[in-house]
Amino acid sequence: MSLLNYTIAFIGLGNMGGPMAANLLKAQAKVKVFDLVPGAVAELKSQGATAANSAIDAVDGADIVISMLPAGKHVQSLYLGDSERATAGLMDVLGKNTLVIDSSTIDAATSIAVGTALSEKGIRFLDAPVSGGTAGAAAGTLTFIVGGEEAAYQSALPVLQAMGKNIFHAGQNGAGQIAKICNNMLLSVLMLGTSEALQMAIDNGLDPKVMSDIMLQSSGRNWTLELYNPCPDVMPNVPSSNDYKGGFMVDLMRKDLGLALDTALKSHSSTPMGAMAQNLYNMHSMQGNGQRDFSSIFELFSAQKPKI
Amino acid sequence: MSLLNYTIAFIGLGNMGGPMAANLLKAQAKVKVFDLVPGAVAELKSQGATAANSAIDAVDGADIVISMLPAGKHVQSLYLGDSERATAGLMDVLGKNTLVIDSSTIDAATSIAVGTALSEKGIRFLDAPVSGGTAGAAAGTLTFIVGGEEAAYQSALPVLQAMGKNIFHAGQNGAGQIAKICNNMLLSVLMLGTSEALQMAIDNGLDPKVMSDIMLQSSGRNWTLELYNPCPDVMPNVPSSNDYKGGFMVDLMRKDLGLALDTALKSHSSTPMGAMAQNLYNMHSMQGNGQRDFSSIFELFSAQKPKI
Amino acid sequence: MSLLNYTIAFIGLGNMGGPMAANLLKAQAKVKVFDLVPGAVAELKSQGATAANSAIDAVDGADIVISMLPAGKHVQSLYLGDSERATAGLMDVLGKNTLVIDSSTIDAATSIAVGTALSEKGIRFLDAPVSGGTAGAAAGTLTFIVGGEEAAYQSALPVLQAMGKNIFHAGQNGAGQIAKICNNMLLSVLMLGTSEALQMAIDNGLDPKVMSDIMLQSSGRNWTLELYNPCPDVMPNVPSSNDYKGGFMVDLMRKDLGLALDTALKSHSSTPMGAMAQNLYNMHSMQGNGQRDFSSIFELFSAQKPKI
Amino acid sequence: MSLLNYTIAFIGLGNMGGPMAANLLKAQAKVKVFDLVPGAVAELKSQGATAANSAIDAVDGADIVISMLPAGKHVQSLYLGDSERATAGLMDVLGKNTLVIDSSTIDAATSIAVGTALSEKGIRFLDAPVSGGTAGAAAGTLTFIVGGEEAAYQSALPVLQAMGKNIFHAGQNGAGQIAKICNNMLLSVLMLGTSEALQMAIDNGLDPKVMSDIMLQSSGRNWTLELYNPCPDVMPNVPSSNDYKGGFMVDLMRKDLGLALDTALKSHSSTPMGAMAQNLYNMHSMQGNGQRDFSSIFELFSAQKPKI
Repeated sequence: MSLLNYTIAFIGLGNMGGPMAANLLKAQAKVKVFDLVPGAVAELKSQGATAANSAIDAVDGADIVISMLPAGKHVQSLYLGDSERATAGLMDVLGKNTLVIDSSTIDAATSIAVGTALSEKGIRFLDAPVSGGTAGAAAGTLTFIVGGEEAAYQSALPVLQAMGKNIFHAGQNGAGQIAKICNNMLLSVLMLGTSEALQMAIDNGLDPKVMSDIMLQSSGRNWTLELYNPCPDVMPNVPSSNDYKGGFMVDLMRKDLGLALDTALKSHSSTPMGAMAQNLYNMHSMQGNGQRDFSSIFELFSAQKPKI
Repeated sequence: MSLLNYTIAFIGLGNMGGPMAANLLKAQAKVKVFDLVPGAVAELKSQGATAANSAIDAVDGADIVISMLPAGKHVQSLYLGDSERATAGLMDVLGKNTLVIDSSTIDAATSIAVGTALSEKGIRFLDAPVSGGTAGAAAGTLTFIVGGEEAAYQSALPVLQAMGKNIFHAGQNGAGQIAKICNNMLLSVLMLGTSEALQMAIDNGLDPKVMSDIMLQSSGRNWTLELYNPCPDVMPNVPSSNDYKGGFMVDLMRKDLGLALDTALKSHSSTPMGAMAQNLYNMHSMQGNGQRDFSSIFELFSAQKPKI
Repeated sequence: MSLLNYTIAFIGLGNMGGPMAANLLKAQAKVKVFDLVPGAVAELKSQGATAANSAIDAVDGADIVISMLPAGKHVQSLYLGDSERATAGLMDVLGKNTLVIDSSTIDAATSIAVGTALSEKGIRFLDAPVSGGTAGAAAGTLTFIVGGEEAAYQSALPVLQAMGKNIFHAGQNGAGQIAKICNNMLLSVLMLGTSEALQMAIDNGLDPKVMSDIMLQSSGRNWTLELYNPCPDVMPNVPSSNDYKGGFMVDLMRKDLGLALDTALKSHSSTPMGAMAQNLYNMHSMQGNGQRDFSSIFELFSAQKPKI
Repeated sequence: MSLLNYTIAFIGLGNMGGPMAANLLKAQAKVKVFDLVPGAVAELKSQGATAANSAIDAVDGADIVISMLPAGKHVQSLYLGDSERATAGLMDVLGKNTLVIDSSTIDAATSIAVGTALSEKGIRFLDAPVSGGTAGAAAGTLTFIVGGEEAAYQSALPVLQAMGKNIFHAGQNGAGQIAKICNNMLLSVLMLGTSEALQMAIDNGLDPKVMSDIMLQSSGRNWTLELYNPCPDVMPNVPSSNDYKGGFMVDLMRKDLGLALDTALKSHSSTPMGAMAQNLYNMHSMQGNGQRDFSSIFELFSAQKPKI
């Protein structure tokens, strides 16, 4: 599908945003880009994008704005402005009916606050966090989990499909963020539960390949056994078989678990498994594993056993 | 496939053992049965089995012995005898090369002790615990997870196939028990992790059907989302949509988790998620839910929220 | 000691603030009071306070301002104003060198933000959360844990001593809040650990009085065994011997644990025991125990045991 | 007090048993000693003990037998014999009314089984595990927690007082073991809860000495803050201020926690805090800390923090 008629502003060209913007260019969209790092802008310019000098410059004439930023404070500052630094927010310059898609993974409260403020100006807003990592961003196979009005969601679909493969509509504004962190909190629990079950089997003399195969066909089946076995050498081409390099970093899982528990505290939700996972990932990171793949948590269980 | 040439002794005719023995009869095996409850024996006799007066009577002339008993002490007493009550064990009467299949879910240590003692007498032993519940026992669709020698496993296959659908060979003697409890420990973690993720989504305004659908297609995918959603009215024909009736009882999960943690203590395995699950299931049982389906643990999370 | 020369504005006259202000009156201070609930103001007026029509009215002419409010947002709004409602904050009306003592239990981040904003206007600020409950507030035996400059702390001491018995200086602004929630997080862990140890002893036939006595003289000794035994009828005159009435409510412990875990998330601190406690207290509250004493968590462990 | 008229057999002369037997000699008892390690026997002989060639030799003529062995299987084998090795147990040679005191820390089930078997022969049995470590054993300041009949307890008191300072009577046979592991399970929870609270305070800029002092005078007070602060350099002369050398080893705490959780599984007791502690101590041991003092668990929390 072609995006020939779309003018898109893309703000935030990091490891994820850069390749996402590149995929929009491949789909023939007109893309104006901005990032605080000049080199990131230059890279996209070399691929056909129009370089902007500021976020406000980038959105000039755009009918769609996409942002991909590290944390809630950056998103808030971009759209609502920053009173401390006396900088204006995009909310003051965007035209009515502009469609804003924020793909940052941030707390739902900020997402809702930004969405509400934009709505009051007649600007349409979707929170659309992604999963799939840098590989998915490059390949255009990301998963988008979207929160916002149905009509806005439908408008965004062609653009999202140029960057991703699975697109879900989770509910109203904020629901994209909530759904993503609920899923990732559960993923961390699957990874830990699978790791400890596999290692207990090994400790009792079983072959982890046989054990993995049995659980895969039984009620222990889950995504980590299907695609991401944490035990080295059970599965080819996964981080556990490559010294836990690549994949999804421990510190990114830790960030998502932090967002999840912050949400749980606010909604008075009980999450004993998620809280345990958050603490174990925090400890694992503190022991120097923050940059390794998140399946390296397996090593918490496979370290040398005590003798007595 | 026909078992016409098999003479099988079946000991233990409870909710599981009864229908399993019945399936052997349907496959045309000659089956001699014993249970401490006379009515259970009479029921099988009415279906074509030969009633025995004792376990020793039952195994007379059998080339295969199958047992399905509640706990390790019963299995030990049946095969090794009971010095306190001065009763003999089957080990003293079984002929060489008899194939013994114990389908009880018990601790691996007892399984290994019994298997070792029988081996020394030339008797072949397999531990072959099942999953699938009473429905699977009646339908002949149980899963068997088997530990023991390859040759014995091959000999047992036709018999196991008459009672079950999926048959796994987990490893040496005891491995069947280990594999089953590792799987069930992981299952309890999946159930708890899925429950808390779904409820947190609900607490933040999401529809549990939408959330379940998203996670099913994402990295949170697991057996409970596929076949056994714990949130009422997301899935038809599961216990959660039937007031948590039927299915796999809380107290049976609690029993399996007890076996799992006992194993973890002995092998010095770390199982923080399993230990959390065991305690939460224990508390859930203590609050009067022991006879309900194990997905009722969802109610720990969905009870009324505090206001402040 | 007399506070004859002090003019104190007291804002927030709830279950805690009311009796605290009354103790200042008993110490002969001149006290101007304000609360959104007119009856609370009237009650203090009947004890000798000057009634104010607003917070701004209350602080007029005061050299010391004390606030006792439910949550961080109220404290922020009181001192910094509320841009949404276009109300001014006290920071715009207080004179230089006014000493502000906020005794609310709130998140340290808000405390620091308020303190920093006031400091920039030359106003001195102390966070001074209390423990000791409504009984301690009435008796003037509260514990104050104070954060802020040493000189301001020294100035506040006579006033705090009129309302409390133990006064600690924890460190810089915010340290009072941090120290209080660290202590209360630990307290929740002591209460849970003591409860499960006592119940396990009971489950194995021991007398909880004997067990309590042994642990009190051994390495299990802790504040709950000394003063607040959670097992009914071990100790007279504690909530556990009075159907868990009175004392420190479950929902207040839950609030403090929420503040603690929020702090832990922000400082990347691992708190597995505190996280477990927070979840167990949340579940306990969800089951209808929010208004009971926090030692009622003992019932999580003492409910009827499963039979198998 | 003098033990001049006592003839005592002491079996098991390790790091604990050796100095305990030495203290009996200092109190003028006649002591016959046995250990599988000849050097241990020789050491006690040099201090005035009579060397025995076997346990059976040692108890000949003794009116009191004391044992101090590593695990339940050793205690069972010593008293009840070992059918596999065809060795007799002391139960077959001890005279009626002999008083047996087993000071090993073992599972209560074994203690009760041994006690019951001895009782049937008219032999009196006490389980009397100790705490206080090798320093307490040498100084004669151990704590004994005793289970068994009141009369036997009274008979044992003079002997126990020669080796210890605090002597508790916990209840019937087995109660000594139960009380000790309940206490030590709680101790592990106090150590972890205190560690995480202190580190969270440090992470937020507080001084651990100030924080310790505040909690010591507040509701967070517990034995570890009083006598065994886990944070380096808060307290002199504790393992944390000596690179976690000396004191009570991680692997001994791990052993006690294993006994505690095994007991909890058998009595269907919920122990979420103890289970968490057991897993954290297991992981800590697996990372190479088994021989360090148990307060080194503090390092789980104080490792370098992640940056994001």
